[in-house]
Amino acid sequence: MRNLTLMTDLYQLTMMYGYFTQGMRDDIAIFDLFFRENRENSAYAVAAGLESVIEYINNLHFSAEDIEYLRSLNLFDEDFLAYLRKMTFTGELHAMPEGTLVFPFEPLLRVKAPIMEAQLIETALLTLVNHQTLIASKASRVVYAANGDAVIEFGLRRAQGPDAGVYGARAAVIGGCTGTSNVLAGQIFDIPVKGTHAHSWVMSFEDEVSAFRAYAHTFPDSCLLLVDTYDTLASGVPNAITVFNELREAGYEPMGIRLDSGDLAYLSKKARRMLDDAGYPDAKIFASSDLDEMVIRDLKAQGAKIDFWGVGTRMITSSDQPALGGVYKLSAVIRDGKMIPAMKLSDNSGKITNPGYKKVYRLYKKKNGKAIADLMTLFDEQIDESKPLRIFDPGQTWKTMELTDFTARELLVPVFIDGKQVYKTPDVHEISAYAKQELSTMWEEYKRVLNPHVYKVDLSDKLYDLKQALLREGRK
Amino acid sequence: MRNLTLMTDLYQLTMMYGYFTQGMRDDIAIFDLFFRENRENSAYAVAAGLESVIEYINNLHFSAEDIEYLRSLNLFDEDFLAYLRKMTFTGELHAMPEGTLVFPFEPLLRVKAPIMEAQLIETALLTLVNHQTLIASKASRVVYAANGDAVIEFGLRRAQGPDAGVYGARAAVIGGCTGTSNVLAGQIFDIPVKGTHAHSWVMSFEDEVSAFRAYAHTFPDSCLLLVDTYDTLASGVPNAITVFNELREAGYEPMGIRLDSGDLAYLSKKARRMLDDAGYPDAKIFASSDLDEMVIRDLKAQGAKIDFWGVGTRMITSSDQPALGGVYKLSAVIRDGKMIPAMKLSDNSGKITNPGYKKVYRLYKKKNGKAIADLMTLFDEQIDESKPLRIFDPGQTWKTMELTDFTARELLVPVFIDGKQVYKTPDVHEISAYAKQELSTMWEEYKRVLNPHVYKVDLSDKLYDLKQALLREGRK
Repeated sequence: MRNLTLMTDLYQLTMMYGYFTQGMRDDIAIFDLFFRENRENSAYAVAAGLESVIEYINNLHFSAEDIEYLRSLNLFDEDFLAYLRKMTFTGELHAMPEGTLVFPFEPLLRVKAPIMEAQLIETALLTLVNHQTLIASKASRVVYAANGDAVIEFGLRRAQGPDAGVYGARAAVIGGCTGTSNVLAGQIFDIPVKGTHAHSWVMSFEDEVSAFRAYAHTFPDSCLLLVDTYDTLASGVPNAITVFNELREAGYEPMGIRLDSGDLAYLSKKARRMLDDAGYPDAKIFASSDLDEMVIRDLKAQGAKIDFWGVGTRMITSSDQPALGGVYKLSAVIRDGKMIPAMKLSDNSGKITNPGYKKVYRLYKKKNGKAIADLMTLFDEQIDESKPLRIFDPGQTWKTMELTDFTARELLVPVFIDGKQVYKTPDVHEISAYAKQELSTMWEEYKRVLNPHVYKVDLSDKLYDLKQALLREGRK
Repeated sequence: MRNLTLMTDLYQLTMMYGYFTQGMRDDIAIFDLFFRENRENSAYAVAAGLESVIEYINNLHFSAEDIEYLRSLNLFDEDFLAYLRKMTFTGELHAMPEGTLVFPFEPLLRVKAPIMEAQLIETALLTLVNHQTLIASKASRVVYAANGDAVIEFGLRRAQGPDAGVYGARAAVIGGCTGTSNVLAGQIFDIPVKGTHAHSWVMSFEDEVSAFRAYAHTFPDSCLLLVDTYDTLASGVPNAITVFNELREAGYEPMGIRLDSGDLAYLSKKARRMLDDAGYPDAKIFASSDLDEMVIRDLKAQGAKIDFWGVGTRMITSSDQPALGGVYKLSAVIRDGKMIPAMKLSDNSGKITNPGYKKVYRLYKKKNGKAIADLMTLFDEQIDESKPLRIFDPGQTWKTMELTDFTARELLVPVFIDGKQVYKTPDVHEISAYAKQELSTMWEEYKRVLNPHVYKVDLSDKLYDLKQALLREGRK
């Protein structure tokens, strides 16, 4: 396991040093990790990254070399360095389980810990959760657009480094992909790995049919041929059919063909007919080539005959929005046993945070299990499902709704208590199934890939009143 | 050092198995790693990632666990697995040194190795070089826009995972950044680390002035205060000046202030005047907040009074283009001692590759040292600087130019020969200085951040003729 303890911003350490030397080391801080805006044209995100966060926290320690390096910066005194050398995480972490659907301003993670510890881990928590949530959310859109077809993650070579490739593949599976081309991700997370051959295979033979034949000899019972190296319809598909005929004579059925360039709607329809006419109605057509949810949706709308989708660059980098923009904001400080709520003001009202030690509930309609709205409350509030619940839009408070026959589920679960891990992460397949279940509780209106309906995230009366009071106080 | 041997696409292994079983394991393959298109509005890229490639190749080996995993896939026979268990890289790798300016279709890396080895390493080479070249190139644009001001890399929390943060910081320094907030990158690469305090520091005190005072006590000789937590001009800057006055009485001079929101042109001009009027003309103004080369250029055009730029999300993710699109294409096969050039055809002429075992020269004007054009040649061609050289545009062959008084530099240097490393990577500061030197050989017309002039990359007569011959042959 890698030691990522120094994977933090220098200002975390300078602030820690400040708290250490200014008599504030016993303060307890509460931080929320959340994002402020959905991806354009998306109503939700899919939480991911918690498993990496748990590994990181369990391994949090400054090695002797780390201390030596920090000493070399000439910023810190020896007392502080001695403190760091012994430091571990002793606080609490609550989190939404991976695969949970999450909305703007809701804490995906909530940290309650001695202020120096809470501050140190900010950067790594953001790096891990921002990245993996971003990719899981993008994958969820792609899989939605594929409308039941299998989507395979194909992006390793375009990922922003090894971690982005490996954890991106995992996040893609959380978002609904059924496999990856990435063998290392397959090994680590037990994800099905997929792949056949590249153009270079075809180019390294005398001619295309020899290359296809050699591939069929190598993998007679899983023969899928890439047909676009020279000319898809004039050469690739006819040569594939020639080899499929030879395979069939030898007692094997081919798996199909792969298209990787050109107009996939046109080529797939033509290729489908050629395969059908040649007696291969069960041969599958696999397509790749700069795909994303928008392209897949349009190709399907035009009747493309594609059975499997290989999605690379645009999913592994979330190319239309390559950062989630998650932040980690102080919501309260406990000093001398007293909790003091904190709020960041801003001239930009979209950047004002929600103060206090909070929880998040998801409210479901009892009769159909569909999610109605989320409600953020203060920590000491309980929702009584037996009584009607009035919720309101915190931006337009005259918009209210009274709920009856609902259930309420608290979304943040304990992960670390007193520095000890109390949560066991499910494997990625369980997480993927949970994310699918989560999506099934959402009306289709929230899942459209263009202009979806906005899901309600409301504040309880008490939380709303606290926020208004702090806003008035801040104005003074 | 991590074992990234399985960080490959499954199809590399299935192809290797094909070569192994189909009697082609002794073939030598030559591959070029290159990209096809510049970033929009950019004339060049800055090569990066070679150090990671060298580490990867030196560490290439299938562990017993890796073999066990591959066996579990039920794709390969025991002979092949035994071969993998002993496999190392025995071939040649040539590369452009990190920091070299590189243009579309030029090989950044050229591999000549037994075909199975050359195929295995494709994915990792692409992942490492695509990512790091992407970020170094983006950083180069940002630094150019800052026009001599220091630019600090600030993006770890929005990076696509730990590697993207750490190697992204290194790439940013290759592109010209002078420091990073990322402590781990600072430790690994000896990059200067920078940082002061966050909004949470201010929020964890009773009021802003107490927070500033405590920070000044902690770091009296490097006091830089973040002034936008509540209200930049009404509260932040006046409170900073109060504390600067106290500092000065104690015998210290402040470093300055940081702006992280609002209109940076307006706020920086107002804050500059307030600092000057209060007697702090030497206090610096540091700015951050969704910056990139376009925003920096516009802020400077409007006379923003900013001395240092902290650039995060948009640089560490290269948000306007989050993938380089580099590819790895077979250019020749050596079989039974005979070299057979290879070329990928495509209906899309932009995807047709350059065949053959090639070199890249950069041609400079002798009298001023400025780069004139690059010339790709076949491996057995030599450029004679004492004779006039006629070059031509391979797309518009009637456009020719005769060069005299020029020098020619070969850009690909030997990195591995017979599997042994023969190249020592410079440290990141040397690479950064080299990249700066490289830029100084380019006319400003190639560096504009909008609509730059296109740099010429030409083909030698022999290479052009080979390509045309293969195109004609492919047509048949």
